[in-house]
Amino acid sequence: MATLCRPSVSVPEHVITMEETLELCRSRHADHPQLPLALRLIENTGVATRHIVQPIEETLKHPGFEDRNKVYESEAKARVPAVVQRALDDAELLTTDIDVIIYVSCTGFMMPSLTAWLINSMGFGSDTRQIPIAQLGCAAGGAAINRAHDFCTAYPDANALIVACEFCSLCYQPTDLGVGSLLSNGLFGDGIAAAVVRGKGGTGVKLERNSSYLIPKTEEWIMYDVRATGFHFLLDKRVPGTMEPLAPALHALARKHGWDASDLDFYIIHAGGPRILDDLCKFLEVPPEAFRFSRATLTEYGNIASAVVLDALRRLFEEGGAEHDARGLLAGFGPGITAEMALGSWRNAGDEMV
Amino acid sequence: MATLCRPSVSVPEHVITMEETLELCRSRHADHPQLPLALRLIENTGVATRHIVQPIEETLKHPGFEDRNKVYESEAKARVPAVVQRALDDAELLTTDIDVIIYVSCTGFMMPSLTAWLINSMGFGSDTRQIPIAQLGCAAGGAAINRAHDFCTAYPDANALIVACEFCSLCYQPTDLGVGSLLSNGLFGDGIAAAVVRGKGGTGVKLERNSSYLIPKTEEWIMYDVRATGFHFLLDKRVPGTMEPLAPALHALARKHGWDASDLDFYIIHAGGPRILDDLCKFLEVPPEAFRFSRATLTEYGNIASAVVLDALRRLFEEGGAEHDARGLLAGFGPGITAEMALGSWRNAGDEMV
Repeated sequence: MATLCRPSVSVPEHVITMEETLELCRSRHADHPQLPLALRLIENTGVATRHIVQPIEETLKHPGFEDRNKVYESEAKARVPAVVQRALDDAELLTTDIDVIIYVSCTGFMMPSLTAWLINSMGFGSDTRQIPIAQLGCAAGGAAINRAHDFCTAYPDANALIVACEFCSLCYQPTDLGVGSLLSNGLFGDGIAAAVVRGKGGTGVKLERNSSYLIPKTEEWIMYDVRATGFHFLLDKRVPGTMEPLAPALHALARKHGWDASDLDFYIIHAGGPRILDDLCKFLEVPPEAFRFSRATLTEYGNIASAVVLDALRRLFEEGGAEHDARGLLAGFGPGITAEMALGSWRNAGDEMV
Repeated sequence: MATLCRPSVSVPEHVITMEETLELCRSRHADHPQLPLALRLIENTGVATRHIVQPIEETLKHPGFEDRNKVYESEAKARVPAVVQRALDDAELLTTDIDVIIYVSCTGFMMPSLTAWLINSMGFGSDTRQIPIAQLGCAAGGAAINRAHDFCTAYPDANALIVACEFCSLCYQPTDLGVGSLLSNGLFGDGIAAAVVRGKGGTGVKLERNSSYLIPKTEEWIMYDVRATGFHFLLDKRVPGTMEPLAPALHALARKHGWDASDLDFYIIHAGGPRILDDLCKFLEVPPEAFRFSRATLTEYGNIASAVVLDALRRLFEEGGAEHDARGLLAGFGPGITAEMALGSWRNAGDEMV
């Protein structure tokens, strides 16, 4: 039985507050015809602080795609290993116990992916499988959990390491002036998360069932425009309304498992934005309190893309975890529009003999 | 038991011959101090013809990363569905029978990946899992086979669709003048391949065991330099010599399975270049004839990156397949430097009841 162990999360040292974000938006876009709307949307996010890999003065410059990507690589190499090591320590495993590394990141591009460097520099085995995913965006955190679950289902003695490394601030595009872009500039933050899925043993979420769902004909609602200046994030204004078509997929998954999605013990949900959380609360008929972990991530870090679900889960661990056998739902949402969903129940190491 | 069914392969209609490649190299790099070496290296590839998505005049222009990537997207959308449909037909499955799409491609970048568009436009189920991989380069064909095998091991009733879409000609960089670049300009070709891995039934290679191997400290030997002009392929001159450290990993995999890597019935090997094939023949102690499928791919299509292994396998099918239970080895090599290896035996549908 695959168990998703305690995630380790790190956010960078440079902090930008909501007030600073609003002030920057006002000063840089003073003549923007939709400035009041943009400010209102940013305020509505509820994102109080975000953490970014460079000081804000550097972040606002665009030195070119090549230099940006070099910053991505050097910051990832400087910051990821400590996060990975802590996740391994928390799962009580060594690098040599890991069979597959699933590395998800959509805010920089390297070939080979960071997996090769991690294997070489941290002493993972040469036979470690590498699954680098760059194209599932914010859904990739859920996808990584689900593919790790699948892998441990295929090989019950295996252990999977998940790494989500997102430096959204390196995708800031000063020339993108649509309201969706101004909102994104105030919503996304940087963060790194890692977690181990243990095939045997471990304390955390015993993964029981997973599924994916693509909302038909929405593939252009969240996308990258790929240009000489790098990745330009496009966010359709219909995205915040996508929980209505997605909620039935979450209900269906739970029903298939003999559970009721409205009546679970914990919820680890991608905090894409405030409306995503508000609407999903409503359509799942759960109290707002059920989404407190995701809301805390959004408030303190902003939308840190694929790392959100792992950070929300970390907050559950910090609250002391859940009762043995407590049932929960995990879900990441991203481009496609794709939902990556999982059901699991809390287990404490030693409470079960499997 | 997961069975890798007959691959479907398509190469574009624009053909460039070895003689035309040499002539282009001579005329465009007349003053290059290492022109004779570059010409000799290109001649040594043995690549007689390559197929490319645009006429050569267009291919030699660089209209910018953005336009290149738009060509990637439009050509992929125009060409991939027919290849996928044929792979489904050959596996006797419908789109709705597919549980996961593994889409591998390193020569263009889209988010969401083409998987979302394929699901919408070809009628795959909304619950189809998407595994897009862009960062394993030429090794991704082997990785796709192995991840499909893992998925069907986890879910024995599942079916996986593999798609490899590589338009290497869209990564031509006129300003890259190193000998490795001139050689690459004469080595890589374009191609699309698809194949189904059936959890139950099917004729083809019954996948039995897979593994990965990363040659330590070689992560910079094959890589992309990511720039405003797109992906710049860097090929270290030590790459052709990598079969010596890789062969032991192939031998070890076979031994673990009770097989002898030198004594198998068929070999489906990534045709990275002629020396890769020559050396691996030598280190595996097999006759050159054993690699005839890979050599034919290299000669007729060039190195079509992640699509090579699927095209080589297609040629085995076209030869009439193999005897029931014939044992074989599949291997893809690419950045990392990573090898993705698999062992399987030939099965004919109906010959077994599993």
